[in-house]
Amino acid sequence: MPRAAATPAVIAMLTDFGYRDHYAGVMKGVISAIAPATQVLDLTHGIPAGQIAAGAIALAQSWRFFPPRTIFLAVVDPGVGTRRRAIAIASRAGARFVGPDNGLLWMAAAAAGIESIVELQTARYRLPEPSATFHGRDIFAPAAAWLSRRVKLGALGPQRKQLTRLDIADGVSETARMLKGAVVYVDGFGNLVTNLSRAAVERFAARQRQDRLSVRIGRHSPIAIYNAYAEAPAGAPLALVGSFGMLEIAVRDGNAAARFTVTAGAPVSLRVGTK
Amino acid sequence: MPRAAATPAVIAMLTDFGYRDHYAGVMKGVISAIAPATQVLDLTHGIPAGQIAAGAIALAQSWRFFPPRTIFLAVVDPGVGTRRRAIAIASRAGARFVGPDNGLLWMAAAAAGIESIVELQTARYRLPEPSATFHGRDIFAPAAAWLSRRVKLGALGPQRKQLTRLDIADGVSETARMLKGAVVYVDGFGNLVTNLSRAAVERFAARQRQDRLSVRIGRHSPIAIYNAYAEAPAGAPLALVGSFGMLEIAVRDGNAAARFTVTAGAPVSLRVGTK
Amino acid sequence: MPRAAATPAVIAMLTDFGYRDHYAGVMKGVISAIAPATQVLDLTHGIPAGQIAAGAIALAQSWRFFPPRTIFLAVVDPGVGTRRRAIAIASRAGARFVGPDNGLLWMAAAAAGIESIVELQTARYRLPEPSATFHGRDIFAPAAAWLSRRVKLGALGPQRKQLTRLDIADGVSETARMLKGAVVYVDGFGNLVTNLSRAAVERFAARQRQDRLSVRIGRHSPIAIYNAYAEAPAGAPLALVGSFGMLEIAVRDGNAAARFTVTAGAPVSLRVGTK
Repeated sequence: MPRAAATPAVIAMLTDFGYRDHYAGVMKGVISAIAPATQVLDLTHGIPAGQIAAGAIALAQSWRFFPPRTIFLAVVDPGVGTRRRAIAIASRAGARFVGPDNGLLWMAAAAAGIESIVELQTARYRLPEPSATFHGRDIFAPAAAWLSRRVKLGALGPQRKQLTRLDIADGVSETARMLKGAVVYVDGFGNLVTNLSRAAVERFAARQRQDRLSVRIGRHSPIAIYNAYAEAPAGAPLALVGSFGMLEIAVRDGNAAARFTVTAGAPVSLRVGTK
Repeated sequence: MPRAAATPAVIAMLTDFGYRDHYAGVMKGVISAIAPATQVLDLTHGIPAGQIAAGAIALAQSWRFFPPRTIFLAVVDPGVGTRRRAIAIASRAGARFVGPDNGLLWMAAAAAGIESIVELQTARYRLPEPSATFHGRDIFAPAAAWLSRRVKLGALGPQRKQLTRLDIADGVSETARMLKGAVVYVDGFGNLVTNLSRAAVERFAARQRQDRLSVRIGRHSPIAIYNAYAEAPAGAPLALVGSFGMLEIAVRDGNAAARFTVTAGAPVSLRVGTK
Repeated sequence: MPRAAATPAVIAMLTDFGYRDHYAGVMKGVISAIAPATQVLDLTHGIPAGQIAAGAIALAQSWRFFPPRTIFLAVVDPGVGTRRRAIAIASRAGARFVGPDNGLLWMAAAAAGIESIVELQTARYRLPEPSATFHGRDIFAPAAAWLSRRVKLGALGPQRKQLTRLDIADGVSETARMLKGAVVYVDGFGNLVTNLSRAAVERFAARQRQDRLSVRIGRHSPIAIYNAYAEAPAGAPLALVGSFGMLEIAVRDGNAAARFTVTAGAPVSLRVGTK
């Protein structure tokens, strides 16, 4: 369904370019030069450099809160200049995704329902003479900008069938007494976001006779489960199902990443018992 | 006075969500989905995590520079999920303020003239099933977005009379020869912003026979007062009334917070004499 | 050529105010209050504090990617409050530049073709009673906002002829077997951007009988030249002509600034031979 003429098209940007340099800003200039009426929103430029999984999680957690026809311009691209493909995806939910085919887009696109995939090859929808090192500026931003001006996805390049898959849920396993996963994202508050979803947690809990569960990370003491950060005693660790529906470990008014000296990948388990 | 139809409504965001994560970006998506024609401006997302006073000062110093009908969406909310109220305030100056009732909004709202306060309880102006941990996304951003679409403040929830007060001027005291205050904000350049206003400084100075005053912090030598950073010798400490009307301590081409190893709360005094 | 009425005017901001404070955000408020229909884009606020050359490089590398009539509002201004002039420049390419006359604007403006320069003195196009410490808010942002509303450059103040010059190419020299330059910018990925342009590198290479060249920095081993970051072995240093046309030194999936413990100013050379 096309948007009403009065509603501006929206491009939401997610990159690992940081805020120190002008790189993300230059991409906004490229968009504005092609599509002056399009609204550009910063989702974040703070994805840690080259961490595709962190970008994929942020995108997967965010897309559904934006207007239905939003174009997500996502660039975490350590393989820029190599054979990895530059792609755009249309979804059944309406959202479009533009970026490198390195796993960054998979979780969000799969959740939105992949409708079609094209490889960004049409020269007229790129900047002239694209560089080998900054496809964000030369290929991805122009593609997003032209899409926002109602250029059809199919005009950007040939159809593709395959998408590089990156699914954080792949690492989850379950035994009778334990649900095992991992920290997949450490946020700026030091909260440890895991790949254990609310559904997985509730299914596991329902299967236990007793509902006294706790969370373990490394060799640290069991961590109690709460509903809100501020329910835990000051300075105490806590686990909760966070606002994006994933189990996370936090410290009340503190920093769990610093407390547990943990980074993404650390194993986490949900177990019966609190000792 | 209503805005002309051609002038977009403005929401200015201030949070402690930082720039690493997608949290502030998701709030922009929520706003854009509800109010696509509204202009969203980042005031800052760099308030140090959980530091309500720093957010309150930044908001109090900023609101009057924005268009008169701006909606300030302010989220520094360590008590999210507890009994602290979610509120919106209309002011006589025209500005509206949306955020937690934990002191964050008080100074700005009091300066703008509090006209009415509501508690954000109307379900249709929240996201469905608000989380316990991210009211910025689920309650505050929708409220600001609906306000920007001319929903009346009174429609957002019941009227309230009380507001949590946080006034940095409360810590100021004065003797015959000394005006005492504190560092209330350390900015990104390392400048130490105090709670001594230009008016308080000028009143104190007028009362002294001699006008040779200096500033003391800790046991450091007296600091001379200048009009501009660049008037002080290179590398020298200086005091001046900053651009927001508060006495501050800086180091020419340097970092006062590092030089004096000082954080917010450190006592500062303005005294007669320069020794 | 005037823009079509439907196309919003664009102001692109570049400052060293960082993202922690509300300073850049307040400038956006000032612009929005004067020119509500103007689109404000963040080029970056992450220029290291007071580093005029870093800001000048970022601006020179960025301006040509924006819409032709963009107004660049650039504030890296360690001399604020002193005699350095506040200026605005119109260019033959269409871009306008507003900021302090301390070298920050020179490279971009010279590349765009300087058409006229004015000193920002007209009181009605400043905020009332400008402070001595925050000209970004009180003088530069209002000037940019009024320009975006089609106020003529000449109305902002008297014409000037001179501009403070800052040219990173000044430090380049060449011998028969060596092209010498320096690191002029360290980006957020730790890439070391030099002042050796693609043209200078190609001219030097064409003059050599053999085309085996390498790059030296300090006493480190010669660094091989590639076309893309990902062509180098994992963890290896590499040199390439980056996406803005300057020779740079990087480390594949790593940080060259950390590897070589180098900051801006370090000498770099391109030499014949790879040993």
